[in-house]
Amino acid sequence: MEMLKRRIQVEGRNLGGGILKVDGFINHQVDPELMDACGRELARRFAHIRPTKVLTAEISGIAPALCTAMALGVPVVYARKQKPITMPDQIYLTLAPSHTKGLNVELIVSPEHLGAGERVLIVDDFLATGQTILGLARLAQAAGARVVGVGAVIEKSFEGGRRALATLQVPIESLAIISDMSEGKIVFAE
Amino acid sequence: MEMLKRRIQVEGRNLGGGILKVDGFINHQVDPELMDACGRELARRFAHIRPTKVLTAEISGIAPALCTAMALGVPVVYARKQKPITMPDQIYLTLAPSHTKGLNVELIVSPEHLGAGERVLIVDDFLATGQTILGLARLAQAAGARVVGVGAVIEKSFEGGRRALATLQVPIESLAIISDMSEGKIVFAE
Repeated sequence: MEMLKRRIQVEGRNLGGGILKVDGFINHQVDPELMDACGRELARRFAHIRPTKVLTAEISGIAPALCTAMALGVPVVYARKQKPITMPDQIYLTLAPSHTKGLNVELIVSPEHLGAGERVLIVDDFLATGQTILGLARLAQAAGARVVGVGAVIEKSFEGGRRALATLQVPIESLAIISDMSEGKIVFAE
Repeated sequence: MEMLKRRIQVEGRNLGGGILKVDGFINHQVDPELMDACGRELARRFAHIRPTKVLTAEISGIAPALCTAMALGVPVVYARKQKPITMPDQIYLTLAPSHTKGLNVELIVSPEHLGAGERVLIVDDFLATGQTILGLARLAQAAGARVVGVGAVIEKSFEGGRRALATLQVPIESLAIISDMSEGKIVFAE
């Protein structure tokens, strides 16, 4: 997606250690026009697999997942990292190792909003190691739902997430794929 | 906003202690069509004060704030509760007491994305005691920005937030105002 790649080239910053700073338009400040375009593009790529629900993880997955769900006309659920008091006692919970935080985070979904028969499209801002997305897939499977696709705004292909997700056997789409961030570079895959 | 009030009447649940469960369409699962309508309505009510930025707090403020920003055509910034590694060392930070969690939470904004001259519209899912919104207002003021309005999806008027925000001297708009939740009731203000 050229509009997104251009924005990463102009405003993105390689902080080293595989960390891409895009907090001016993706995950602290959000450019609604760009995010809306990303959501529409992910929806276009996945419309044929007829998702009935979009699933993401708080916090920075919410904006792209909401825009995708809006374009698909289906609800979006964001997994919580802490159980709110409004959730029932029985929940779906899994642990996912957080690469950037160096610890396990909980991902929690209420059984009221994820159930058997759903066709779940998982959407997140980043596809890096794939561990968060695998955690979301476990939640969907625990609920008896079927994961039908995985969409990400930005993929860091050198972190191997696409390989880790191969077991899901679903289409994976990323709007900008970065293949190399060594030595301060930001190199997009062809 | 009738569409929202009807939804609260049909699907909302009064859990007691002033807790309103709306996690099927507002803050765990999100109905994108309803949220888009809420964002458009908040944008319509505030367009005349010409906001240049929407400010909210993660987590459940993100969806309504993004939809409002989309309709206004301005960026949205969500204050983080933990400092991500992509943020600079110098940040704006304030503490806001969390009513539902019974402790103080940090609200953090990068100076890169909030600055002097901005006209800030604060948007959140709930206006209850007003403490989170006052925290966001302090961040805006610290950045030299001017708060020009406060918008909420649901206001619990019996928690006194509107009074607490009077010091800001800005227009406050809520799309559904609940005046009484005693004895299991959900009563809308006229």
